[in-house]
Amino acid sequence: MTPDWIAVDWGTTRLRVWAMQGSQALQSRHSDKGMGGLPRDGFEPALLELIHDWLPAQGRMPVIACGMVGARTGWAEAEYRATPCTPLDPLRATRPDVGDARLDVRILPGLSQAAPPDVMRGEETQIAGYLALDPGFDGTLCLPGTHCKWVRITQGRVTGFQTFMTGEIFSLISRQSVLRLSMAGAVSDVAAAALGAADAMADPHAAMRGLFALRAGSLLDGLAPAQAAGRLSGLLIGTELGAARDFWHNHKTIIIGAPELAALYQVPMQAAGADVTRMDGGQLVLSGLTAARTALQEIS
Amino acid sequence: MTPDWIAVDWGTTRLRVWAMQGSQALQSRHSDKGMGGLPRDGFEPALLELIHDWLPAQGRMPVIACGMVGARTGWAEAEYRATPCTPLDPLRATRPDVGDARLDVRILPGLSQAAPPDVMRGEETQIAGYLALDPGFDGTLCLPGTHCKWVRITQGRVTGFQTFMTGEIFSLISRQSVLRLSMAGAVSDVAAAALGAADAMADPHAAMRGLFALRAGSLLDGLAPAQAAGRLSGLLIGTELGAARDFWHNHKTIIIGAPELAALYQVPMQAAGADVTRMDGGQLVLSGLTAARTALQEIS
Repeated sequence: MTPDWIAVDWGTTRLRVWAMQGSQALQSRHSDKGMGGLPRDGFEPALLELIHDWLPAQGRMPVIACGMVGARTGWAEAEYRATPCTPLDPLRATRPDVGDARLDVRILPGLSQAAPPDVMRGEETQIAGYLALDPGFDGTLCLPGTHCKWVRITQGRVTGFQTFMTGEIFSLISRQSVLRLSMAGAVSDVAAAALGAADAMADPHAAMRGLFALRAGSLLDGLAPAQAAGRLSGLLIGTELGAARDFWHNHKTIIIGAPELAALYQVPMQAAGADVTRMDGGQLVLSGLTAARTALQEIS
Repeated sequence: MTPDWIAVDWGTTRLRVWAMQGSQALQSRHSDKGMGGLPRDGFEPALLELIHDWLPAQGRMPVIACGMVGARTGWAEAEYRATPCTPLDPLRATRPDVGDARLDVRILPGLSQAAPPDVMRGEETQIAGYLALDPGFDGTLCLPGTHCKWVRITQGRVTGFQTFMTGEIFSLISRQSVLRLSMAGAVSDVAAAALGAADAMADPHAAMRGLFALRAGSLLDGLAPAQAAGRLSGLLIGTELGAARDFWHNHKTIIIGAPELAALYQVPMQAAGADVTRMDGGQLVLSGLTAARTALQEIS
């Protein structure tokens, strides 16, 4: 079986490709050649390195990509489509110049919101993937990670979204601030995280007040690193949950992400009475890229 | 004139020494040999490098030090005195072992608080320095910096304090998170900082909600780096001011610190009706060390 198109998820730190036949993945590969480390002329070689033996001897191979590859400092800038809108419009993809004539590359647009200002690149394709599975969904999708996206969906459209930097802030504080001395590399204790999240949901000042107390707690009371890391994680996530309450309060919510991280969001939300489930979204980006491929074929 | 004692302010990143005669500073020197970069056997050489020509041919030179030099990973661990207590008790100083017999070194204790857990090392000496100038002070001292200390003073005693990591968090987010791309090295715009602080004092969720909006604002609306940096600074300081309200609301407050930073705290506090003044605390640590020297002489 030979591929008839290639799907590409190209983020800041990672490149992942699939050889596709219709909606079926024949093979997948990945490298650490994320957008963040590549000069403009480094994108085509990084892609060819992974897919060269999937290309035909002659003719052109459709390649559909999403993510930070479309950023201003990426391969070629893809536009931001203004919400409210559907998550996907492959006709508005950007087509970078290529040296290898066998490549027919399209980079899908991201989404933007005017007020409050916000943007996404890549998550819109996961959202499209989710809606391909559940087209009638009305509610909120939560996509935690380095930057967590909260997304309101109504009638197949993204009607509003908000980005929180919680994951990146946790990483900076736990690894580089003075608190690193109290949690060095420890895996977050889940119970301490839940308690920290509950405290921060009850009092939005709890995180600011509670950070240095983790350092002092380890100096004075021997607070264990896993407890300190868990509480830090919970304080930050709980503050986010408080700030994002309008997204999940009285709206059916699905958390899409790796199980451990998704649970850190789900547990305190359930304790607060939210209607919230979670799913591992590992395949959603491929479903979204496949939806884009299908849409392009239906048009042509 | 020859010194009769030596004052030492030894923090994480910097070492500063004064040749003293009574309460008069004859000369001062400094180096970047802060506690953070020194192994245990590196402290005495780092000190001697700055003061060797101030030492007598024979006899011992009193050296009184404060700050992170007394941390567990410093020269010798100085105790934490439990609050409520006076800021200073030089009789409980730690005396590290020294190789050079001319050195008679005392490291002043820090302060601790059991609940919520908190600690300080060095600021207690600045506080003592302030109280030497204004012994009857009843109110709050605010010492902004990498870690900001809020300190309640009653009848010459520290009755409670709280540490906020605002300065360190600002530094990490502005230099290392994705927001660095929107504020690279810019000096914070003062008006944007004041507005951000007011927003965060009015809504404790404003900071969490407003961080990524700075990145999106620069991508979508051309938000200027100085505006973005100012607003980030203001959002974080305003959140701290909201969390620390019990310290300054209805308490006379003095902000002790460099003028630009102190103003970022003072302006939004004044807008909220606080009784707040500020002073540049550059000499307070020396006043505190001098008070310790005087106390030791009165006892002996």
